[in-house]
Amino acid sequence: MPPATPTFVTLEGIDGSGKTTQVQELAQFLARAGVPHRVTREPGGCAVGDAVRAVLLDPAHRTMNGLTELLLYAAARRQHLADVIEPALAGGQTVLCDRYKDATRAYQGYGRGLSLEVIEAVHRLPGLQREADLTLLLDHPVEEALARACNRQRQSGDPLTRFEEEDLAFHRRVRDGYRALARAAPDRIVVIDASGPMEAVQQRLRQVLAARLGLEEG
Amino acid sequence: MPPATPTFVTLEGIDGSGKTTQVQELAQFLARAGVPHRVTREPGGCAVGDAVRAVLLDPAHRTMNGLTELLLYAAARRQHLADVIEPALAGGQTVLCDRYKDATRAYQGYGRGLSLEVIEAVHRLPGLQREADLTLLLDHPVEEALARACNRQRQSGDPLTRFEEEDLAFHRRVRDGYRALARAAPDRIVVIDASGPMEAVQQRLRQVLAARLGLEEG
Repeated sequence: MPPATPTFVTLEGIDGSGKTTQVQELAQFLARAGVPHRVTREPGGCAVGDAVRAVLLDPAHRTMNGLTELLLYAAARRQHLADVIEPALAGGQTVLCDRYKDATRAYQGYGRGLSLEVIEAVHRLPGLQREADLTLLLDHPVEEALARACNRQRQSGDPLTRFEEEDLAFHRRVRDGYRALARAAPDRIVVIDASGPMEAVQQRLRQVLAARLGLEEG
Repeated sequence: MPPATPTFVTLEGIDGSGKTTQVQELAQFLARAGVPHRVTREPGGCAVGDAVRAVLLDPAHRTMNGLTELLLYAAARRQHLADVIEPALAGGQTVLCDRYKDATRAYQGYGRGLSLEVIEAVHRLPGLQREADLTLLLDHPVEEALARACNRQRQSGDPLTRFEEEDLAFHRRVRDGYRALARAAPDRIVVIDASGPMEAVQQRLRQVLAARLGLEEG
């Protein structure tokens, strides 16, 4: 039975945690269950967001100031909310979003050391106050995630993005940050063990999502 | 005698008020007076700022959300402060900046109706708190300014930017907004009559700037 209220679901995790593939699989699961849904990702998902994403990920902008980065993500997020997320929820669709506010907290806050208070001051601006209803945090050791991300890069031939070039210590701070966020918001954030085969991880995700949406597991 | 303390001077005014030319002339005046200085403009003036400026001025982004626009300007501003304005002032240069925070207040606030409280909440974020020491507001009737902007566009063959396509009523709100800001901050903002020949306007600007910096008029 589809849920009465559309739900805003976000997926989080460090680079190489397999989020992107898992989101697609979850979308197929929702489709089979007859749940109207919309898949999207941050910071893109709309024309302005994609343009901002290009500025953010350009390795030429390596000296970008921490607050600049925060404000660019926030700008893309506001447009993404206005163009994609809010209309989808208002239209009865459950939203599956690849990264949202927790990514800012984990990467800019815990990773780069930007003040969490400043981050929340931005998140409290009218128009940016919406929080996810459910956050699925894909968690596994940093070494495993980076190996996966590097492997994907070699196969695709794409240049490494700025984030993937960062060092292990940075990614460890991000992972620890995500886990701290989960401890602070246990009702919203569910930590999913992302080790092992992709199919097993998908099963774990479906179990949590199905329980929250009142669906039978696929 | 050059001023002991470098001064952060901003120039403001609606499109077509002749700011860009006047800033260049003021720079020559400061050079002749032996005042170390740096000329810059918002929202560009650095690589990240120029990239953000391109996103902001793209007519394809006509449906941009008001808060998105505010955050993009703020992002460019923070980087511009970190890369250009703060180092110049720290190095003893007086800064002449073409547009700054008052442009956000006048265009996004008074012009587009974005809450002035939200604008100031962004301006209060750590890293964005710096205010200009002196603001020269070029003020003249909107009809005159728009005629000048349209004329410039026809001569250059450049396409109209998004702002220049806006209607007269919008520009009237912006002008009135600038004047309201000047009334609220009379110690910082000096209203300069920008009617008449460019040379006469430059004389008025030099008079105010010379008085503030303790220079003889050129």
